[in-house]
Amino acid sequence: MSQESVDYRPMWEQLGLDLEAHDALLSALAQMYEDAYLSQVNRPEGMAYFDFVMSEIHGLRIKELQDHKANGGSVIGTFCIYVPEEIIRALGGISVGLCAGAEWAYDEVEKYLPSNTCALIKSFMGFKLGKVCPYVESADLVIGETTCDGKKKAYELFGEWAPMHVMELPQTKSEEARALWRSEIDRLIAKLEDVSGRSLTAGDLKVAIAEVNAKRRALQRLNAARKADPVPISGKDGLLATQVALYDDVPRFTATVEKIGEELEARIDAGEGAAPEGAKRVLLTGSPMSIPNWKVHDIVEKAGGVVVAEEMCIGSRYFDTLVPEEAEDVEGMLDAIASKYMDINCACFTPNTGRVEDILRLANDFQVDGVIHYALQFCSPYQIEATGVKRAAQDAGLPFLSIGTDYSAGDVGQLQTRIEAFLEMLQ
Amino acid sequence: MSQESVDYRPMWEQLGLDLEAHDALLSALAQMYEDAYLSQVNRPEGMAYFDFVMSEIHGLRIKELQDHKANGGSVIGTFCIYVPEEIIRALGGISVGLCAGAEWAYDEVEKYLPSNTCALIKSFMGFKLGKVCPYVESADLVIGETTCDGKKKAYELFGEWAPMHVMELPQTKSEEARALWRSEIDRLIAKLEDVSGRSLTAGDLKVAIAEVNAKRRALQRLNAARKADPVPISGKDGLLATQVALYDDVPRFTATVEKIGEELEARIDAGEGAAPEGAKRVLLTGSPMSIPNWKVHDIVEKAGGVVVAEEMCIGSRYFDTLVPEEAEDVEGMLDAIASKYMDINCACFTPNTGRVEDILRLANDFQVDGVIHYALQFCSPYQIEATGVKRAAQDAGLPFLSIGTDYSAGDVGQLQTRIEAFLEMLQ
Repeated sequence: MSQESVDYRPMWEQLGLDLEAHDALLSALAQMYEDAYLSQVNRPEGMAYFDFVMSEIHGLRIKELQDHKANGGSVIGTFCIYVPEEIIRALGGISVGLCAGAEWAYDEVEKYLPSNTCALIKSFMGFKLGKVCPYVESADLVIGETTCDGKKKAYELFGEWAPMHVMELPQTKSEEARALWRSEIDRLIAKLEDVSGRSLTAGDLKVAIAEVNAKRRALQRLNAARKADPVPISGKDGLLATQVALYDDVPRFTATVEKIGEELEARIDAGEGAAPEGAKRVLLTGSPMSIPNWKVHDIVEKAGGVVVAEEMCIGSRYFDTLVPEEAEDVEGMLDAIASKYMDINCACFTPNTGRVEDILRLANDFQVDGVIHYALQFCSPYQIEATGVKRAAQDAGLPFLSIGTDYSAGDVGQLQTRIEAFLEMLQ
Repeated sequence: MSQESVDYRPMWEQLGLDLEAHDALLSALAQMYEDAYLSQVNRPEGMAYFDFVMSEIHGLRIKELQDHKANGGSVIGTFCIYVPEEIIRALGGISVGLCAGAEWAYDEVEKYLPSNTCALIKSFMGFKLGKVCPYVESADLVIGETTCDGKKKAYELFGEWAPMHVMELPQTKSEEARALWRSEIDRLIAKLEDVSGRSLTAGDLKVAIAEVNAKRRALQRLNAARKADPVPISGKDGLLATQVALYDDVPRFTATVEKIGEELEARIDAGEGAAPEGAKRVLLTGSPMSIPNWKVHDIVEKAGGVVVAEEMCIGSRYFDTLVPEEAEDVEGMLDAIASKYMDINCACFTPNTGRVEDILRLANDFQVDGVIHYALQFCSPYQIEATGVKRAAQDAGLPFLSIGTDYSAGDVGQLQTRIEAFLEMLQ
């Protein structure tokens, strides 16, 4: 998928990638993107940016990271939206979500992890062990978090292969749990100051908060357009925008997505859809979907439905709330950051009733016809929460389907059958 | 297994048990106990107490709980050794570990939990849904904790069927995490004061600390005897003592176990063993083993080996450390309790290097020939820690076997083969 005009191989080699395996990965990724994305009709013109970004996902963007490092900046890898990117950015870092969306080197991974580990965790370990992720190889630091048992314990092993810092995210939202989280923010700053050789200033933090808020606002605008019928952008394209938000250049991404938002609003006015008017509208909720995990969206949309919202970490949980911008001093800004992140409704918290409220609100706002709960196999937090979400959806009169899957293609046929039957059933 | 002379059925009926299912459970339990325990030779005489206790596990002990409640006391159910029983006791409560060691009503359970949930969690939910656990039906309160994803989320469902209070156990041992835990102790006290109608006093707490410490000291004495060769007590009997410690009357248990300790010391002097001198000595480490989960011990010992120590929650993690008794005021005692419990080395913490140190220390103290790592299937924390434990054991020259299993009998043949091969390999 790399541009023929630039040879990135010396850069990949310098990063220690396994070039042959990496070629195979890029080729598979290009094929997946073509099948899922380039086959779509009536796409917004602005999505051409994402086609380019995806074609350069291991090329130009990695080159930018190297240039940033050469200019004294740092690259910080993350696996979770609880890691405050404002702080990374204020300390001269580029925050990049690490590769975790495809099966890779599972044979190596299963020397360390039980086979019954969720696909996301096996994937990030496989990309590292298989030496095919230029992001993790570019990272000056990888920041983990205690959001689930599997990640928490896998990070202990991962830390032997990459420079690792783990944040303790509490499991309740009590005052004392918030105090612990607030102290973890301070501990993160100390670590990042050490890695970057810089000191956090109020000015830099204020700019970073504004820039990341602007990115989230752009995503809010794009996603608000998905309320329309006909929907002006496919679910797949909506998902891709949030996926790319986690590693792309912030101001460039923001400007581009604002333009796409503008285009979508014009399409709404013109009644132009990426799917026909009346297409069955689905809310997807559950485990995160990292690039290139487009499986469920692809099945829904090829079956004639359309995904109009993702109540997911790679979805509304990422962009729905902003860091309040009132504070002028570092402490005040950090308090605001700590609160904003703690208020995300992840299944790692108990209880997590806010998530059900979010689902019902989104279902109403986006006028969905049905809810599909998506859990990665062995992702106990979301698998078990599905029971309560199902009940809440049914109580609200929302048709509900729960699926458990992984990154393999083995169950695509079965999922197609179940999702097609579900869509047919919708009024 | 109940004594023919007393008819407990009216009591069980009053507790809302499903009498027919409960009869089937007791009958299965009696058979399991006979096969695993009563078939043993050269047992210490003192184990007769445990034979009696087991025969009355749903009889006399439940009657005692009812009498205690009738006298104004409370019964508090727990699922984890992090819940401070000293506090329960100081507030007039009897702390009982709830049923979680056998497959029961899985068909009902799987309406709420994914099939890939660990056996312990499915079991406690199955005992509740199947109405066969008189302990949970006697409980005025059930205390959960956030030690793993599965329990954390299952408690949200369990709380709909039983009065539930969940303690947040942090995931690191930082100062701030300890502060959170300390605050959770205060929150527990408020809850227990509410349930019991009593107030915590320094005098009651001091007595409770002393009594529970005495219980742990008695278990330390019994277990120290397992260092001898020939070992004067089987691993199965050692395990049973710790299992029963979690629900038996404290002073009675302590006195009995002290006597068994005395008997074991006499047996050591006389060179009397429960297994022959030179029997291969195994350290078991990993997930908890609740009654009647005697599967691995039974296989090891029927294959001619002997389990000499359990680095487990139902094992050394329960009794190896005491609450310091110096403090005279409530705050000081609660600080001591908070620290003692936080210092337990469970896989829920990251990092959890203390566990590996404990394993190596026990392996040395008990002169073990090999280490068997035991993880319940889908128990990610222990499954993943097995990788590091294996490495540490091998670095220390200790033969190592890792097994993953559940409560079913389906894999017994396969485990026998693997464990026999492991024992044969030991020098």
